[in-house]
Amino acid sequence: MIGLAQIGCYVPERKVSNLDLMEKFDTDEAFIRDKIGVIHRTRKEEEQKASDLCLKAFENLESKQNIAIEDIECCVVVTQNPDFNIPHTSAIVHGVLGLPESCASFDISLGCSGYVYALSIVTAFMQANGMNKALLFTADPYSDIIDEEDKNTALIFGDAATVTLLDGDAKLKPLGFDFGSKGIGYKNLINQDNKLYMNGRAVFNFTASTVPISIRNLLKKLDLNKEQIDKWYFHQGSKYIVDTITARAGLDKEKVVFDMYEYGNTASSSIPLLLSKDILYLQKGQKIALSGFGVGLSWASTILEQF
Amino acid sequence: MIGLAQIGCYVPERKVSNLDLMEKFDTDEAFIRDKIGVIHRTRKEEEQKASDLCLKAFENLESKQNIAIEDIECCVVVTQNPDFNIPHTSAIVHGVLGLPESCASFDISLGCSGYVYALSIVTAFMQANGMNKALLFTADPYSDIIDEEDKNTALIFGDAATVTLLDGDAKLKPLGFDFGSKGIGYKNLINQDNKLYMNGRAVFNFTASTVPISIRNLLKKLDLNKEQIDKWYFHQGSKYIVDTITARAGLDKEKVVFDMYEYGNTASSSIPLLLSKDILYLQKGQKIALSGFGVGLSWASTILEQF
Repeated sequence: MIGLAQIGCYVPERKVSNLDLMEKFDTDEAFIRDKIGVIHRTRKEEEQKASDLCLKAFENLESKQNIAIEDIECCVVVTQNPDFNIPHTSAIVHGVLGLPESCASFDISLGCSGYVYALSIVTAFMQANGMNKALLFTADPYSDIIDEEDKNTALIFGDAATVTLLDGDAKLKPLGFDFGSKGIGYKNLINQDNKLYMNGRAVFNFTASTVPISIRNLLKKLDLNKEQIDKWYFHQGSKYIVDTITARAGLDKEKVVFDMYEYGNTASSSIPLLLSKDILYLQKGQKIALSGFGVGLSWASTILEQF
Repeated sequence: MIGLAQIGCYVPERKVSNLDLMEKFDTDEAFIRDKIGVIHRTRKEEEQKASDLCLKAFENLESKQNIAIEDIECCVVVTQNPDFNIPHTSAIVHGVLGLPESCASFDISLGCSGYVYALSIVTAFMQANGMNKALLFTADPYSDIIDEEDKNTALIFGDAATVTLLDGDAKLKPLGFDFGSKGIGYKNLINQDNKLYMNGRAVFNFTASTVPISIRNLLKKLDLNKEQIDKWYFHQGSKYIVDTITARAGLDKEKVVFDMYEYGNTASSSIPLLLSKDILYLQKGQKIALSGFGVGLSWASTILEQF
């Protein structure tokens, strides 16, 4: 079975401070710090596209681990802000990295649930096709579509990208997944005419009611209880949403990772950004839970175990 | 193992005749008929989006086979002309069809290789997650991005959508796949500023050199020879490309399906459109080959057997 070997990240150095916008949006530091949970938002250069962010994340991966390009059998990009609609961004990444011609490449269009979904989609695809090594990228540069005058979105999103090396020999493996969709609510988070619209209240309510149930269902399916989970990695939508899930699911706060103050909500990159800091320090037998939710409306949860 | 149970299709009634454009593009009927292979191109209504085409294809599926909405566990749309970039089109389809909340939904961004790729991606995902029934849609309305003055693309593409019911009980099952990417050539087929650009010569050369090798590799991997294949379903890029693959791969012309005269090149829908006519008439033990190629540049081939 395929596992997660290493994660490379790209977080742009350029940042925008939400503290400079308190007056503009008639808000205060307590709200920015304790409800949104974003002090600075990372911001790519204007000309950088999703593929450029992916390549930066790959550079970071290479600085952590030697990657033999010729061994990569699959290259996947999760994005809803692709370089172009045609072709898929993974083709561009494939070309620039000089991946082998036999390397399968495709994009998955999903938002904040995308990383967890993709862990299942790509590992299953690899397994079915006898593949051993893949690069799974996330890159969703929201700065291109944020209306800086819209309080509902302007203080939240940051740019980032990640790449996860999936490997048949890696010891951190998914035990199972829970997926779901409330497509009926899709209009609550939508890019129309290149501007993001978010009904924050509706997305919050969806998440608060759905994610605790997803966790419960997944634990039950795997015959585990929540005390057996060593750490919880939720999509970093906002501090308020992570706190709410923690309370509603009755989780030990100490075990719930929160770290978006200096990034913002980086969509499908938020979970791998967190995980990249811990991935090499997990002990044999430890179990961690991941849950992503948002655009769609959509959610996906998984539990990984270190073997 | 998961198989293909039934295919629903939507082909818009509205058509544009290439024969009316011979003077404009300084060409003749022999070229239109024998090289392009497209007499009429199907054309959706302007306001129809990818999800609308998917829903029409689903209506057709329902007219062929009773579908229990509550049994659908996965809903996937293959498209590079989505309704919006955010959310994925599968979320919209999920909402309109009233699929269950537990139904996984995601989009795959791939072009003309997308259907074959998706057969592997989705069946592997279902298998890994213990799912039994899924809807796999293809919908790539190119008419939104075609420059009617560009001879390289204006005579080729048509609009269509399909939906394949994937089912654990179905008897038509993939035996194996071959995938590949030449990302370095991605600029030869690209949507920039909402206009499709195609370097027809480069895409042709790519296909003519790549697809026969993909077929050979796949046959070898499955320990089959080409005489054991009962029918060949190639992406209907043009008559010239299908004829060229047939010749270069040394295939029996009688076994190679060609039928795009009244549709045009419908991208990821071309293969399921062909297959929809034959799927219920395959005999036990028959084997058919599918191969898609194009945007990326990318290709995917599979062999299906009727069990």
